Amino acid sequence: MKNNQFAIVPTDSEAAIAELRTIHFITPEMAALKTVPEIYQALLAKSFPEVHTASSRQHRFANLMATATLDLNEWLAQATVVSNQVFYNIGLQLLGFLPGQDFDLHDPLLAMRTIHLPLVGDSAFDRESLYYAWYLLLNTRGHRGQTLIENLTARGYFVPFYQLPNEQKPLFFNGKAQAVFDTNALIRDVVYVEAPLDTDQDGKRDLLKVEILRPAETATGLKVPVLYTASPYNQGINDHAGDAQMHNVDVPLPPKAPDNNTLADVAAKPDETPIPAARPINQTTREAEETFSREQSYTLNDYFLARGFAVVYAAGIGSVDSDGLATTGDTAETASTIAVIEWLAGNRPAFTNRDADTAIEAWWCNGSIAMTGRSYLGTLATAAATTGVSGLKTIISEAAISSWYDYYRDNGLVVAPDTFQGEDTDVLAAEVFSRSLRAGDAHRIQAKFDAKLAELTHDQDRTTGNYNQFWDARNYLKNVDKIKADIVMVHGLNDWNVKPRNVANLWDKLQDVPVTKKLILHQGQHIYINNLQSLDYTDMMNLWLSHELYGVANHAKTLLPNVLVQDNTAAQTWHGFDNWWQDAKRALDFKVQYKELVPADHPVDHRAAHFSDQLPDKLFKYYQQHLDAWQTELLNEHKDSPLYDHRLLFKSWQAPEAQLLVGQPHIKGSVAVNQNFGMLSFMLVDFGMAQRLTVSPQMIASKALDLGYHWREDDLKDFKLAKPTPFKMITKGHLNLQNRHHPWHAEAIQPNQFYDFELDLQPVFHHLLQGHQLGLVIYATDMKMTVRGNQDLQYSLNLNDIQLHIPVKSL
Amino acid sequence: MKNNQFAIVPTDSEAAIAELRTIHFITPEMAALKTVPEIYQALLAKSFPEVHTASSRQHRFANLMATATLDLNEWLAQATVVSNQVFYNIGLQLLGFLPGQDFDLHDPLLAMRTIHLPLVGDSAFDRESLYYAWYLLLNTRGHRGQTLIENLTARGYFVPFYQLPNEQKPLFFNGKAQAVFDTNALIRDVVYVEAPLDTDQDGKRDLLKVEILRPAETATGLKVPVLYTASPYNQGINDHAGDAQMHNVDVPLPPKAPDNNTLADVAAKPDETPIPAARPINQTTREAEETFSREQSYTLNDYFLARGFAVVYAAGIGSVDSDGLATTGDTAETASTIAVIEWLAGNRPAFTNRDADTAIEAWWCNGSIAMTGRSYLGTLATAAATTGVSGLKTIISEAAISSWYDYYRDNGLVVAPDTFQGEDTDVLAAEVFSRSLRAGDAHRIQAKFDAKLAELTHDQDRTTGNYNQFWDARNYLKNVDKIKADIVMVHGLNDWNVKPRNVANLWDKLQDVPVTKKLILHQGQHIYINNLQSLDYTDMMNLWLSHELYGVANHAKTLLPNVLVQDNTAAQTWHGFDNWWQDAKRALDFKVQYKELVPADHPVDHRAAHFSDQLPDKLFKYYQQHLDAWQTELLNEHKDSPLYDHRLLFKSWQAPEAQLLVGQPHIKGSVAVNQNFGMLSFMLVDFGMAQRLTVSPQMIASKALDLGYHWREDDLKDFKLAKPTPFKMITKGHLNLQNRHHPWHAEAIQPNQFYDFELDLQPVFHHLLQGHQLGLVIYATDMKMTVRGNQDLQYSLNLNDIQLHIPVKSL
Repeated sequence: MKNNQFAIVPTDSEAAIAELRTIHFITPEMAALKTVPEIYQALLAKSFPEVHTASSRQHRFANLMATATLDLNEWLAQATVVSNQVFYNIGLQLLGFLPGQDFDLHDPLLAMRTIHLPLVGDSAFDRESLYYAWYLLLNTRGHRGQTLIENLTARGYFVPFYQLPNEQKPLFFNGKAQAVFDTNALIRDVVYVEAPLDTDQDGKRDLLKVEILRPAETATGLKVPVLYTASPYNQGINDHAGDAQMHNVDVPLPPKAPDNNTLADVAAKPDETPIPAARPINQTTREAEETFSREQSYTLNDYFLARGFAVVYAAGIGSVDSDGLATTGDTAETASTIAVIEWLAGNRPAFTNRDADTAIEAWWCNGSIAMTGRSYLGTLATAAATTGVSGLKTIISEAAISSWYDYYRDNGLVVAPDTFQGEDTDVLAAEVFSRSLRAGDAHRIQAKFDAKLAELTHDQDRTTGNYNQFWDARNYLKNVDKIKADIVMVHGLNDWNVKPRNVANLWDKLQDVPVTKKLILHQGQHIYINNLQSLDYTDMMNLWLSHELYGVANHAKTLLPNVLVQDNTAAQTWHGFDNWWQDAKRALDFKVQYKELVPADHPVDHRAAHFSDQLPDKLFKYYQQHLDAWQTELLNEHKDSPLYDHRLLFKSWQAPEAQLLVGQPHIKGSVAVNQNFGMLSFMLVDFGMAQRLTVSPQMIASKALDLGYHWREDDLKDFKLAKPTPFKMITKGHLNLQNRHHPWHAEAIQPNQFYDFELDLQPVFHHLLQGHQLGLVIYATDMKMTVRGNQDLQYSLNLNDIQLHIPVKSL
Repeated sequence: MKNNQFAIVPTDSEAAIAELRTIHFITPEMAALKTVPEIYQALLAKSFPEVHTASSRQHRFANLMATATLDLNEWLAQATVVSNQVFYNIGLQLLGFLPGQDFDLHDPLLAMRTIHLPLVGDSAFDRESLYYAWYLLLNTRGHRGQTLIENLTARGYFVPFYQLPNEQKPLFFNGKAQAVFDTNALIRDVVYVEAPLDTDQDGKRDLLKVEILRPAETATGLKVPVLYTASPYNQGINDHAGDAQMHNVDVPLPPKAPDNNTLADVAAKPDETPIPAARPINQTTREAEETFSREQSYTLNDYFLARGFAVVYAAGIGSVDSDGLATTGDTAETASTIAVIEWLAGNRPAFTNRDADTAIEAWWCNGSIAMTGRSYLGTLATAAATTGVSGLKTIISEAAISSWYDYYRDNGLVVAPDTFQGEDTDVLAAEVFSRSLRAGDAHRIQAKFDAKLAELTHDQDRTTGNYNQFWDARNYLKNVDKIKADIVMVHGLNDWNVKPRNVANLWDKLQDVPVTKKLILHQGQHIYINNLQSLDYTDMMNLWLSHELYGVANHAKTLLPNVLVQDNTAAQTWHGFDNWWQDAKRALDFKVQYKELVPADHPVDHRAAHFSDQLPDKLFKYYQQHLDAWQTELLNEHKDSPLYDHRLLFKSWQAPEAQLLVGQPHIKGSVAVNQNFGMLSFMLVDFGMAQRLTVSPQMIASKALDLGYHWREDDLKDFKLAKPTPFKMITKGHLNLQNRHHPWHAEAIQPNQFYDFELDLQPVFHHLLQGHQLGLVIYATDMKMTVRGNQDLQYSLNLNDIQLHIPVKSL
């Protein structure tokens, strides 16, 4: 294990001792202890909450080696001083590391440094430095990726704290909220928030079902902040309806009628449909009428439920027990999302049932709300933030969409999210319209929803793939300047479902917005990262939310790096940066020659290179079923690849030194096609035999992460280095040749005439090792993402015109 | 979904009504209701434990369709009778099935029949038949594989029952224990049982750590039975030590010195080492001194914790916080295993800590114990049962070893469990000797254990692979006649880790033992089956254990089929049989001719066929790394397979009708080899392009199986039909040519001389579809299981002598 820990708050010795008193590690009785070994023994004695007697404790001590020859009891019997050798021998064992395998009892400090664990250098401790070292040890991560205090939490250390009076809760240690709330006593309420919407046009405002989990202490007056996850999936999904709506992608790319559109022409019109009046409030209550058994939860939220935060889930318009229709990303959906925040902040009514005769306030909420969640969930958090809604202090948006056009389209082309060929806004709407899963409700509403679905199908316009008013209404980037909430963004650099452009554009637009923003880029695909062994992500989020929602002065904004990036060349390695590409001052510039990428100042040929997009029928059919084989053969540089004549591949020098490629690679060129329409696709590839990270995090220990005490659990995982591979695709881009200038403006092209083009590929943060080669692949049909008509389309590119520009910065 | 439900107890209407009263579905107030629709409405009203008011309930009703046009409220407003059409329309929705997708509101009875759900035929219900239908519906499994009563349990139905007085607990419904125990209130104790052993030879009896979870009600006098899982893995495993002990299998097969051994010569000698005296008992207590936070649990046990059963885990000799040494399968390990049962049954002392100064009894236990667990865990259950230990009423042994020779050896060969090439008893001992994970303890004991390890390494004798005293001491089959506990055995027909012979031999030997035995054969590998959608395994075990441990007269012994087998040709299909091969009266007999298997009465050639075992070095190295590719190419009948000349393959007729192959295929033949040693391996193969079941159960819904209320969860899974494949290996067998008569007796062979051989392959229960062909493959080195010396060994087999005999029975 290699530790990457960012959420330790630097704390002076005096403050550390005060905190140790707060969590009862230092007790008044300890003042009477005379020697440092006696004090050390007293601290250790508290580290076994499972045992209740001195006899049992002594056996636990006997399991630990203090030196290479003495167990802890033997050593204590003769100790006069506590050296840091002994302290970290014992400390490493308490953290789950095993002498002989993970470290050497003769040199624990070496292991502390190798694993990147913080340590106190004093060779022999006095009382104060012992306390300080103990404090630091409690905040140090062990071999299962949890700190010692978290490990003690999972073993019951904080159970006696459940009984503390509300005034002493929540409890913070090293700037982070601790699990002093009994998760067995959580209160679970359902309320129905009245949104300022009538999407199902029944003349009444849409009621939205909200599931609330809150600590029992709220019933006796404690006010708590809320982690709110808006998840359209949360009340179930209708796979069957989604599948039925799925689009056939094995259709020809059509020529488009040229238009004269400007951006102003496609600007979304504000929805001015009048909204029905709010329901009258005749009576109010503090008691809910409905509860729920098992919510669909996010383990990060579960963790906070033990620590003094409430958690709220809502599936929004069109979901089970709510009103309205699913609309995929429009302003109604955003209004539905923030209605819950408005209720939590005291600015909107909710009712105890769907008859809406009794109102209920979020009287237990302290008015501070964060949003969490990944993918569609993170997308709604982003959407909510762009409204500037009051009460929303921060969002942690993971793998979030920032503009739906960047999810389902690219430069005038229909471009699917990876593994979801044929999906579109209507498919997603059909899937999350979970009212269809309740036959009684469906009976009344399905016809209205089918009409909405037809509208989505029409307006999303798969025929042209152009950016239009429909997509403009689903572009949150237009409202980034309205954001008032601080933001943590998390995204996978290999996420080809929600592609990296989504986070990059948001990050870039936020540069000028006066909120605190943090960015974490990992090497995964479309995943959560709160169960990785190598990164203290959960602690970072605890630091962040303790600061943002409880106002703890824990330096969260400075301790967390602005941009934290997982290295793609080594396991368990994360680096902090000040920015992404925005502070890059250098770039790599290439032109091409025959099959090579060459420095831009080289003289190059004036020839054209050609490829045909059309594949033999049998091969095409094989690739339809074997998408990974298609990509592997596309990148295979050997002449025997069946795709050899169906793409152009250019390879660079072997990198004379390692390079850090950042931001959006930019490509220019000129192309002719034998029809009056066409498309180009591009891949940037890292060539070089090397061990690369596994595609997904691998299981290290099932259910090893306790999120509290006798509470929910998560699996411990991390990326590992896999067997060596010869290449890896770094990024992609797609272009409809009729949209060479704007995605909203289709231009005519003539067959066999050369046209200039340029485009940005999806952004990267890629560590190219010394000796590796960059590859540029130019092709047309992307079997994984574009339509696949297997048409007779032949492309010619002027080699002299092709240019590749990639910003780089120092490692 | 296709339902296979065996654990519904046939119950007459009067008893059903009484039971509905017990679980408060029928209440005294309902006597006042006049009409059947009113009663129906009252029953339905109780089916939404989440809602507390009539208003909220009405909305839930509005979500249900009673007919194709009326929702439940609309229908109730006008209903005068309750038809079974309406009843099952609503019933199917309550069970999670969706109109339009899973069934048609015009014909719910068709769906009830298609999904195999039990139904009441009355077209219109009176009060009594309505109650009866409701009772049956509560016991009917829904689309997530749980019955309606289980679904209601997970939604909080039984929470009010937590407060019932002990006299009314446990509570049985339809013969099965219900979740009326608060799992948040479980008591967790640690005790140290004193085993009649001193395996670490420290002059004191070995103390064994035992973890106990018991209902809070035991503290106030309720006596409960115990599910005991003996798991050597439970306190952690030392992978590092296991890996270090792993054997190299890329070594030559050696010739063996001939011997004159008889079975008597290799009979294990009883261990007559004197045992130290028991510790004196000076004081006793009812309070434990130690607890634990999170045990490594088995979800089937978790389920029973909510239902009035205690659960006990012990890792046995050599594990963390216990005494002793790991010995892999010997009588000391068995004694360690049953010591816990003896304590639970009141026949052996335990202490509150390792100083052993205070004894503690299992005063909360009713004296009835079952053992559960899979693999090594099931093995120890089997071992325990063969002692006839008092108190052990039943075992549910899953994928259990019945003789360790059948796990690590076969007919005089070292034959590894699948995916564990190079493992042996010493490797396993090093892995489970978890005392090595506590450095202090390891410091004191490691030298003794290393000596034991050296003894295991020597005595297991990888050189000859012969059955010897070491293996005889680890053969539980010798003591099957001592079994007093009823047995449920579960095994995968594709389990090549613990191979099917283990369960088959135990089943066969049990035929004459006067206990009740049940056998479940599934199509998985080495898995648990308590989370399958298609089989009510958990309910079956509830029925079984309610009977065996609480004495409930629920007909468990007759309701469960003797032999329950999952069909290999269709998804979600299970068949009950009276026996395995023991009642088979017919057989298929084949001889061979050229590349064919032909009926045994055909005239055949007198030629010999030859193959060379040795592979080109590069190919051999490739297969070392790609074991599945090796097996696929071994079974590939085309001439271009690189293994074409390295094995013999014979294919039969196309089956004129479907066949059910049962028991142990028997092969006879004569073989010559060019050395004075050699081995043969055999595979039986089902040839025929067909969709076959997935190797492992596939995820249907994550965490969908609630094991109680706000308690632990399991994933819902099942096997599905995968893409068509041309063949599937059915079974295997291996033979050292020097052990043609007995595994304990090595005979000399001369090079190039023919010798007769015969052997049983691993047993089968295989449905061979009409038109499919049987294949027999004869080869030598098994890359997945045997040593792999890649020696120059050439084998000749007389075609005329090869005979294959397979018992069959009717489908």
